[in-house]
Amino acid sequence: MKIDLNSDLGESYGPWAMGDDKAMLDLVTSANIACGGHASDPQTMFTTLRQAVERGVVIGAHPGYADREGFGRRVIPMQPAEIGRMVAAQVGALQGVAALTGTTVRYVKPHGALGNLAADDREVADAIVAAVAALPGRLAVLAISGTELELSARAADLQVFSEIFADRTYLANGRLVPRSRSGAVLHSAEEAADRLIGFLETGLMPVIDGAPIRLAAQSVCVHGDTAGAVSMAQIIRARLDAAGIDVAPFLKR
Amino acid sequence: MKIDLNSDLGESYGPWAMGDDKAMLDLVTSANIACGGHASDPQTMFTTLRQAVERGVVIGAHPGYADREGFGRRVIPMQPAEIGRMVAAQVGALQGVAALTGTTVRYVKPHGALGNLAADDREVADAIVAAVAALPGRLAVLAISGTELELSARAADLQVFSEIFADRTYLANGRLVPRSRSGAVLHSAEEAADRLIGFLETGLMPVIDGAPIRLAAQSVCVHGDTAGAVSMAQIIRARLDAAGIDVAPFLKR
Amino acid sequence: MKIDLNSDLGESYGPWAMGDDKAMLDLVTSANIACGGHASDPQTMFTTLRQAVERGVVIGAHPGYADREGFGRRVIPMQPAEIGRMVAAQVGALQGVAALTGTTVRYVKPHGALGNLAADDREVADAIVAAVAALPGRLAVLAISGTELELSARAADLQVFSEIFADRTYLANGRLVPRSRSGAVLHSAEEAADRLIGFLETGLMPVIDGAPIRLAAQSVCVHGDTAGAVSMAQIIRARLDAAGIDVAPFLKR
Amino acid sequence: MKIDLNSDLGESYGPWAMGDDKAMLDLVTSANIACGGHASDPQTMFTTLRQAVERGVVIGAHPGYADREGFGRRVIPMQPAEIGRMVAAQVGALQGVAALTGTTVRYVKPHGALGNLAADDREVADAIVAAVAALPGRLAVLAISGTELELSARAADLQVFSEIFADRTYLANGRLVPRSRSGAVLHSAEEAADRLIGFLETGLMPVIDGAPIRLAAQSVCVHGDTAGAVSMAQIIRARLDAAGIDVAPFLKR
Repeated sequence: MKIDLNSDLGESYGPWAMGDDKAMLDLVTSANIACGGHASDPQTMFTTLRQAVERGVVIGAHPGYADREGFGRRVIPMQPAEIGRMVAAQVGALQGVAALTGTTVRYVKPHGALGNLAADDREVADAIVAAVAALPGRLAVLAISGTELELSARAADLQVFSEIFADRTYLANGRLVPRSRSGAVLHSAEEAADRLIGFLETGLMPVIDGAPIRLAAQSVCVHGDTAGAVSMAQIIRARLDAAGIDVAPFLKR
Repeated sequence: MKIDLNSDLGESYGPWAMGDDKAMLDLVTSANIACGGHASDPQTMFTTLRQAVERGVVIGAHPGYADREGFGRRVIPMQPAEIGRMVAAQVGALQGVAALTGTTVRYVKPHGALGNLAADDREVADAIVAAVAALPGRLAVLAISGTELELSARAADLQVFSEIFADRTYLANGRLVPRSRSGAVLHSAEEAADRLIGFLETGLMPVIDGAPIRLAAQSVCVHGDTAGAVSMAQIIRARLDAAGIDVAPFLKR
Repeated sequence: MKIDLNSDLGESYGPWAMGDDKAMLDLVTSANIACGGHASDPQTMFTTLRQAVERGVVIGAHPGYADREGFGRRVIPMQPAEIGRMVAAQVGALQGVAALTGTTVRYVKPHGALGNLAADDREVADAIVAAVAALPGRLAVLAISGTELELSARAADLQVFSEIFADRTYLANGRLVPRSRSGAVLHSAEEAADRLIGFLETGLMPVIDGAPIRLAAQSVCVHGDTAGAVSMAQIIRARLDAAGIDVAPFLKR
Repeated sequence: MKIDLNSDLGESYGPWAMGDDKAMLDLVTSANIACGGHASDPQTMFTTLRQAVERGVVIGAHPGYADREGFGRRVIPMQPAEIGRMVAAQVGALQGVAALTGTTVRYVKPHGALGNLAADDREVADAIVAAVAALPGRLAVLAISGTELELSARAADLQVFSEIFADRTYLANGRLVPRSRSGAVLHSAEEAADRLIGFLETGLMPVIDGAPIRLAAQSVCVHGDTAGAVSMAQIIRARLDAAGIDVAPFLKR
């Protein structure tokens, strides 16, 4: 049994810190690094990339709406083609800074409201995928299983990896329980670890409205932007290690 | 006899236009395209790149201080290493958008206050050159002859090309007459064209304080941000063509 | 007969110019001045305010979404209370700069997507009105007749003035013909002037789907962001003057 | 004996927090609140203002260079008149948001690099003072004793208050020991409290290069942007209270 752990990192900006990137980079095997859109700046990108490289963590780009005040959590009305150009510029920026640290960006995972839209809107998904396909470096896509983004990336013959969320519950149709519903989020790290290890052993994910379902997953997303989140990630990582599960990146370093 | 014409282009931003890029792209053979720092955004980069590609114009990156309000004309205090990361992010962003238009960025020319600082400060020049050298695509540098930027790029074994200015006068030491002195700028297009053709025929550039000097130049910078500037560029291009001078890019398309 | 002419001005930003403010300030009697949200910066505000003061033009604030790249034409998802705080900060900024020019801001007219939303969404209108009411200076509101913004401002006992558009056509229900429909915009300045003078003489506005309607209007909005727009504004102003109509601000200077 | 405690607050931005404003607002009597230049946004201004109002803390505006990435710690080259317009816009923005919380801004203290420049450069000090004088509300100035800013404000007949720093040491000429010199900063809260109480009892401030000097001070600046800073502020406040010193704002609420 093998699984990747990924987290959204490098989301500081100028003088402002977000989360504890070093602690998280000791735990995860893939890092989705902000690209100067919803968060970050060239200096922050560089620092995060170097910290990831030092720990052998695989680098992904984490582009989002160019809306720092809203942290990329608001849909900014844009044409799909405009979104593609924004994604190309952001991933390119991270690739540029990565070149200074002697590493390369290996995959792309859209952030926040852009990720949500790409999950549901095929035109937006196609625009992002076209940008990823055009960029140098044979970039893969990290997506949620069953989303338009995953389907679009497969249709374009890109390498695609699926992620699940350590602390989010699922519906029988394979989608996440909306945050507005009670029970959408697991708050206990031990409960999350139990569920995750059970899933890895059986391939079956419990759902809140029926029998467990089969889910494909090469990676598990853990959050790192609060003290509690880092603690949950530490417990999950320790539990995976103790269970003899190989925590390793989905792409070779 | 052969010479390149270059101009700073793609300096619009969101709803605001700067200059007449299409008119200039019909005249020049190399375009220094803003990268989202002192000007531009992903959509503007895309539009400018496509217009350049359609006309066979060679693409350069034109990074500057991330200071739109000051248009990159103010020195923002930064450590040289920070400047290197900023340049890598900006050039990377343009490379990313260029990938969408099926072209590649071929060289780098720093903008405004960053260009001036790189001309005089070897540490800043070295930081920019290190970034250019680390970026993919074997990028060349376009610099003013005799500047620290040129020397640094040569020391790093990068390909370097030198530019002169169509409308600026020179001192006997090869530097530009400061804008604060009278006679620093040629306002007559015919006078500028006469001087340029004379220079191309003899290799000798008139100066305001002595005998003409030898100057190396593979490119001539023409401005395009005002109506008068476009008109001057049109006259210079027409005069060069009429004189049988081969106006062609310094790098192969 | 008396009418005010207003225009959206001061929408330059840093090095980028938008329209010909001086030409427009010679024609209008009230200026809706951008506040650093969708456009402008402190220097631009100051310049525009001073030009308006020199010409005796009455000053209004023109707040918009803080989205320069989209020029305030995109709805940025925000809670109404957040919109109120944004409007208060922007109008306050313009009031601050106005103090340097010895004048005061007299009214508020929301810009672009914010104005459209405030016309249709009572909660947004109420948030804007609450901000305007709380700000010092007894500010009035300039709104389109029949909109939620007008109703909200009246309910709050603010002074409210209504505007019509010189170049937009109307429906029998008093709303503007959507730009997506043909005939939404009048392109001939003479036709626009004819219609306007007819309206001022009779109080009746022609509509595209029925008999002319009564419309209240203390001001006419003329555009100034293109060369053609300035020319249309000049013709309209000249025609109004020739018809003996008193072109004067709706608020005393 | 009576003294004010002030701190730079409201320096969060969008999703990013800076310091623990609530903890600091329980300790200080005057709050220098960021205005959207070097930090903050309308929502952050509102939240900070409301928290200050709830605790009866007097409100000051804390304008800085519009350089979030550099947190206002870099000198952005600007003409003095441009600085005045920037300050007017920022203080005006805070005044606008303050109106929503039913309070008013009472004084101005420039931030970071702008504050340092205003201490040494009379033209910059005069531009800031002219803006403060022009703004409504009869704003006072909070400055370091002996600086150009203080002199300029006195020359303009503004109300001026002087501050000292709880954790910074002084030279015999009354200036701060530069941070580059060892001993510039007191790291022990108890030592800082001892020194402060001694100063309040005698009016004499120890210096590192001679005999204690007389210093005027109506306020003491305490930092709040790190966990250690909050702890130091808590100890100082407790020690002042225990010593029977009246900790109260320099301006009436």
